[in-house]
Amino acid sequence: MTPRLVASQQKLRGTVKDRSQQEIPGKPPGGYEPNDTKRRLRWVEELTGRNLEGLPLPRVDELQGIIENHVGYMPLPMSIAAPLLIHGDYARGEFIVPLCTLEGTLTLSMNRGLLAMAMTGGCRTIHLKQELSRSPAFCLPTITEIDSFLDWINDHADSILAAAESTTRHGRLLRVDPTPIQQWVVLDFVYDTGNAAGQNMVTLATEAACRHIQQETGFHYYLESGFNSDKKPSRRTLMNGRGHSVTVEFSLNGQILDFLGVRPEAILDFQQLAMTSSQAIGMLGNNLHLANALTALYLATGQDAACVAENAVAFSQASPDGGDGLQFRMTLPSLTVGTVGGGTRLPAQRRNLELLGCGGGSHDSRKLAEIIAACAAALELSLLVAVVSGKFAEAHERYGRNKIQ
Amino acid sequence: MTPRLVASQQKLRGTVKDRSQQEIPGKPPGGYEPNDTKRRLRWVEELTGRNLEGLPLPRVDELQGIIENHVGYMPLPMSIAAPLLIHGDYARGEFIVPLCTLEGTLTLSMNRGLLAMAMTGGCRTIHLKQELSRSPAFCLPTITEIDSFLDWINDHADSILAAAESTTRHGRLLRVDPTPIQQWVVLDFVYDTGNAAGQNMVTLATEAACRHIQQETGFHYYLESGFNSDKKPSRRTLMNGRGHSVTVEFSLNGQILDFLGVRPEAILDFQQLAMTSSQAIGMLGNNLHLANALTALYLATGQDAACVAENAVAFSQASPDGGDGLQFRMTLPSLTVGTVGGGTRLPAQRRNLELLGCGGGSHDSRKLAEIIAACAAALELSLLVAVVSGKFAEAHERYGRNKIQ
Amino acid sequence: MTPRLVASQQKLRGTVKDRSQQEIPGKPPGGYEPNDTKRRLRWVEELTGRNLEGLPLPRVDELQGIIENHVGYMPLPMSIAAPLLIHGDYARGEFIVPLCTLEGTLTLSMNRGLLAMAMTGGCRTIHLKQELSRSPAFCLPTITEIDSFLDWINDHADSILAAAESTTRHGRLLRVDPTPIQQWVVLDFVYDTGNAAGQNMVTLATEAACRHIQQETGFHYYLESGFNSDKKPSRRTLMNGRGHSVTVEFSLNGQILDFLGVRPEAILDFQQLAMTSSQAIGMLGNNLHLANALTALYLATGQDAACVAENAVAFSQASPDGGDGLQFRMTLPSLTVGTVGGGTRLPAQRRNLELLGCGGGSHDSRKLAEIIAACAAALELSLLVAVVSGKFAEAHERYGRNKIQ
Amino acid sequence: MTPRLVASQQKLRGTVKDRSQQEIPGKPPGGYEPNDTKRRLRWVEELTGRNLEGLPLPRVDELQGIIENHVGYMPLPMSIAAPLLIHGDYARGEFIVPLCTLEGTLTLSMNRGLLAMAMTGGCRTIHLKQELSRSPAFCLPTITEIDSFLDWINDHADSILAAAESTTRHGRLLRVDPTPIQQWVVLDFVYDTGNAAGQNMVTLATEAACRHIQQETGFHYYLESGFNSDKKPSRRTLMNGRGHSVTVEFSLNGQILDFLGVRPEAILDFQQLAMTSSQAIGMLGNNLHLANALTALYLATGQDAACVAENAVAFSQASPDGGDGLQFRMTLPSLTVGTVGGGTRLPAQRRNLELLGCGGGSHDSRKLAEIIAACAAALELSLLVAVVSGKFAEAHERYGRNKIQ
Repeated sequence: MTPRLVASQQKLRGTVKDRSQQEIPGKPPGGYEPNDTKRRLRWVEELTGRNLEGLPLPRVDELQGIIENHVGYMPLPMSIAAPLLIHGDYARGEFIVPLCTLEGTLTLSMNRGLLAMAMTGGCRTIHLKQELSRSPAFCLPTITEIDSFLDWINDHADSILAAAESTTRHGRLLRVDPTPIQQWVVLDFVYDTGNAAGQNMVTLATEAACRHIQQETGFHYYLESGFNSDKKPSRRTLMNGRGHSVTVEFSLNGQILDFLGVRPEAILDFQQLAMTSSQAIGMLGNNLHLANALTALYLATGQDAACVAENAVAFSQASPDGGDGLQFRMTLPSLTVGTVGGGTRLPAQRRNLELLGCGGGSHDSRKLAEIIAACAAALELSLLVAVVSGKFAEAHERYGRNKIQ
Repeated sequence: MTPRLVASQQKLRGTVKDRSQQEIPGKPPGGYEPNDTKRRLRWVEELTGRNLEGLPLPRVDELQGIIENHVGYMPLPMSIAAPLLIHGDYARGEFIVPLCTLEGTLTLSMNRGLLAMAMTGGCRTIHLKQELSRSPAFCLPTITEIDSFLDWINDHADSILAAAESTTRHGRLLRVDPTPIQQWVVLDFVYDTGNAAGQNMVTLATEAACRHIQQETGFHYYLESGFNSDKKPSRRTLMNGRGHSVTVEFSLNGQILDFLGVRPEAILDFQQLAMTSSQAIGMLGNNLHLANALTALYLATGQDAACVAENAVAFSQASPDGGDGLQFRMTLPSLTVGTVGGGTRLPAQRRNLELLGCGGGSHDSRKLAEIIAACAAALELSLLVAVVSGKFAEAHERYGRNKIQ
Repeated sequence: MTPRLVASQQKLRGTVKDRSQQEIPGKPPGGYEPNDTKRRLRWVEELTGRNLEGLPLPRVDELQGIIENHVGYMPLPMSIAAPLLIHGDYARGEFIVPLCTLEGTLTLSMNRGLLAMAMTGGCRTIHLKQELSRSPAFCLPTITEIDSFLDWINDHADSILAAAESTTRHGRLLRVDPTPIQQWVVLDFVYDTGNAAGQNMVTLATEAACRHIQQETGFHYYLESGFNSDKKPSRRTLMNGRGHSVTVEFSLNGQILDFLGVRPEAILDFQQLAMTSSQAIGMLGNNLHLANALTALYLATGQDAACVAENAVAFSQASPDGGDGLQFRMTLPSLTVGTVGGGTRLPAQRRNLELLGCGGGSHDSRKLAEIIAACAAALELSLLVAVVSGKFAEAHERYGRNKIQ
Repeated sequence: MTPRLVASQQKLRGTVKDRSQQEIPGKPPGGYEPNDTKRRLRWVEELTGRNLEGLPLPRVDELQGIIENHVGYMPLPMSIAAPLLIHGDYARGEFIVPLCTLEGTLTLSMNRGLLAMAMTGGCRTIHLKQELSRSPAFCLPTITEIDSFLDWINDHADSILAAAESTTRHGRLLRVDPTPIQQWVVLDFVYDTGNAAGQNMVTLATEAACRHIQQETGFHYYLESGFNSDKKPSRRTLMNGRGHSVTVEFSLNGQILDFLGVRPEAILDFQQLAMTSSQAIGMLGNNLHLANALTALYLATGQDAACVAENAVAFSQASPDGGDGLQFRMTLPSLTVGTVGGGTRLPAQRRNLELLGCGGGSHDSRKLAEIIAACAAALELSLLVAVVSGKFAEAHERYGRNKIQ
């Protein structure tokens, strides 16, 4: 009898043991031979009941709304990492994670992080919020009109909300945050977009609201001021969040740090350097390579990979735990992911969403956000350890070396 | 007889006419039906002699260095946009551009931009530089040692260079830029990586150089300080560049602006808002959606899409041309792309590189960088026009609407 | 009979003429001779009834709360610029402005800007808001406690507010904005500080609130997380404001631009460069030299000049007015100024506040903020014109040249 | 016999004792009474032979080049802090430091930091560099001309240098760094300005060079692009420096930490929060209140206090020392100070420069920069300790409380 994934409390058979015993949990079979690939596929099927073979393609007409001028498909190599052991607000249990990447070492590196995480009992994630905004700007003739315009907006909250929500069944307008700059008033329309990533949803809803405001006030608007930095990296997104915001936390006790071959003092020492560097160069956040994890998971689950440009900003940090270990934490303020709409309805992408138990539940996008955040933290830890212990170049020499030097 | 792509001066048959005649140049056949796809494949083959059918896959063992724990492939929808007419330092002629995306409207939007560009004679691109760095930090016991350490580095430039270049046949160490902060000295090793994107190349070369320095000076180092913001968005990358730096320029005369349905004053007006917004929120650069173009082209040509996180920072700007039109310009300081190594050696990816005439020339990565920059500028213009003319939501309503609202 | 300044609607005799006549308004007598200084003092007294002679000093014991280890005074040169003609929410009428500076040309340059401003009818200012915050962080053992801690804060808003306001008669706690990052919860306590700049007020109030929270929840806190960037330049302050936020607007018609010797196209052209540069280098805002105006006015009116470090971030912009002129606007999101407390109670400083009609009204700090913003806009315009018309170096050659070359 | 200040190796009598004895070094007499002030003045005179009494004023005509429309002086309260014990590249020995401030607690707080610093043997400072730039932009008709323009600049380095240096006896043009963005080429003219702060010097020299380039190439320029962020806070200044760059380092052994009432773990814990906060809000650097120290010292020594807007960006950090203590370090990349020209030639300001032994030596501006940096580090430490130990509000309650609450 094959175990099945259960959305709320998933359990992969035969992996992570009781915590006190500290056994190394099961990980996917390795190797670059065709038989190795088959073995991994069988391993996945045994543990989850899911068959990942073949390349399921949509009918051409199903691509409407996804791509125009279609000519075919680009096959991206796909791998798995496991076991993710997570205790989240929405994601709970053990998971096998599908990845698409062209970067050698990435999968192994994430897998090392996942093992370390699982060996100390898994990670805890909290889902801080989910908000997506569109931020039109109204253009007033002079600054004199700003006060009365803001009053008008406040006084007509009901009709503005009605106009916005008339265009969507699933989205909800949470609030409108005004920022007057010069003669413009930027109105940040903030939505709960449910399981959708929601970029189109908020565009259409906000357009309806703006038309209403323009009709009533006579003021011209641009549907997008740039204030929400859609698909663009910005300090505001790092600070305020956009999409899902998730924090991940897990322990690195002395035993695990030994297993990883690194001392806690060395990690803290490097971290001072890395935080100083990120300050000096004006990096957004201080993660080491969040983009790698996000891209690999986004491509595997039908997300818009262009969003990585705005999502790859995060806080990453190891802190003393009072004993001989560390607490590792990562706060990802911006994950604009969804489990319905867009590329998520393509069959291969949907198959992977189902592998993650995100194929149809009411909070699937939150669950997915937590899974992605946890995997990103695992990959972050793994590179951190590699850099601190001086194995970074060695790993890339072995697994990532191009023939071209 | 079918015309062939010629790397140095490509010409697509039957597309862009003589500039004075202002005919609308040929564009790919449209439609979402299976027959439409076939028509487009035939159209590509007629114009370029390239057949894009099928999903060519590598042998499993060829994935070594690219992915571990391989289980299969994710099929990403692929489209084409054309004609790109470009007068670059390296890319010259007409091109059909392959794209991978899940965002409805993206292909059509880029195609509109490419048409506008072609109708006024194409775009001019200049390749400003190509530099990739790795930035280790040496940790000195106290700040007192900084001066003598910097002297040592200066005095041993030859042996440092020899150590670095001992690991690579194609990379060249251009210089080492030191930045002392606190007790650290960050050494930015700057390389010319030839046709490779080069991230692994600079890692291994810099590791060799650092080992040499450590052996001689006794000072500890971390191979990566974070100072080069590899795969992370930073102000430094925007300001100083990383990878290829390219500027694109093209004219938008009154006739084309009419065709696009927008007045130049309106574009300039919106631009003031957009530049102010990007300042306010701490966006890196002021582009509207560079990430969309980069991701679509990176995925289609075997680039590491995670690099979009650092590359999606750019300057975008329309200026009065002294008459009734505008000059549109975009400076992309960071394109970490290559045409050899990594995912570029996979067959489907390589097929697309060949479609762009980047399959084997000595400056292919520079040519590719110019093509990508030009396409990004076309897509940027198209969204600019859509936002300014108020058609942004309408376009997404028609082409990008998810079934989920 | 000498006219007196009237707080609500000030009028300097014999300065700005009827707008249609476009006469050049009166400006202070010039010259570097002792008699010139006396003439200016007489001119000020005639127009305002205020005598600025001498150096009024406090009793030594009045310096308590202002400085320790007192040894004497540093005499800073003081000048005047006039006429400021302003139509603000709080500041209305004509003003003579006191400045302290060591930078040659600064006073003349501001005076030129004030003249240009007055000649087209003065400037309009709006006072957007006044908010000052202190932002402690509570340290939770793990991220698991975040949710319940946030709930506790929400549920105890009344007692938190009571604790905070128990320490102050004039300050009002407007709201508490929470930001969870990693295991911390930053609580931004936002206050209305009335006529005080308020940094001490918010410190003591927030400390009282935090002690209450700590007593009830047991969680440790730091009174300052750095999140409010008190006296430090930050993107958050530029975007969200801190202290008073003011926007200034005035017209530059064709006649005035001729008077200033500059064409509108040239200003717009330069502005594209300046906005691009400020983006490239990660400047906070895009003003040219706001710090000059702020420092000169802060020193003259008893403000803490160290606050310039956080206040010198602003948006500055000229826009076409539809005809042959421009609209010039400046949004200053952060002016942490006050008219009571701190250095404002020293006699010489108070004399200058009274010269500006800010010596005792109920909205004096708002009035002062508008005056400062307007003067800053005048100085900004003046440098803009100098740079665009190529007179920048010439002016500094004539008025600012040090003997040391 | 009264000891005198010796520029190269100053020694205050009766202050810092032999390190091993750990006696608390002498500090200025306290108190707010007139007699206390007199006692301090006598104390200063005994230790240094300098008399700080009275308010020496310049002749009115000496204000030319410093201020126009002069009407008098603003008396700023002045205090002293001591002993600064410094082992710098240029500043060596013990110093009594003059401060101008309106912020209660500032002087006492800096004094506490100076004492802690002196008790562990004083601080070490290194002077990393001194460079000031002006950054004109040349406007090319199209991007096509960029290459040849850059070639022209390279080929005419000699005549450009000659033109620039023709305007100055003391300044030296070190190099010209070009940055092409869009159709502009920003040329960063980098100078050594000797003992002058140098803003006017580089303006006039660069204007001469630009006129030459314009005459020969025909291309238009703006003397200032904004790229050097003169008096504006920017990431570039934080990263690359502007003016003097100085690093300060001193030990905090366990004994001193006890004296300060704080544990090293607590400082490291708070520091993680502070570095994360500064990242989140886009602060430039991570100092706590550098602006306070800079403003107080700039006002006391005739510097342009408006420069604090660009100079108040720095790196601040405590690191474990391997034992029970910490190393405290601060890197200040931008101190645009001088000891000749501008306000430094006014008599009261000059008197203070002489008190610091910066009244006429050949490297006085470097010495002054090191002194300022060391004082800033002392003040930084003191606030750090106050925040971490929970005494921040208490100190402001006692020493900084306004009558207005």
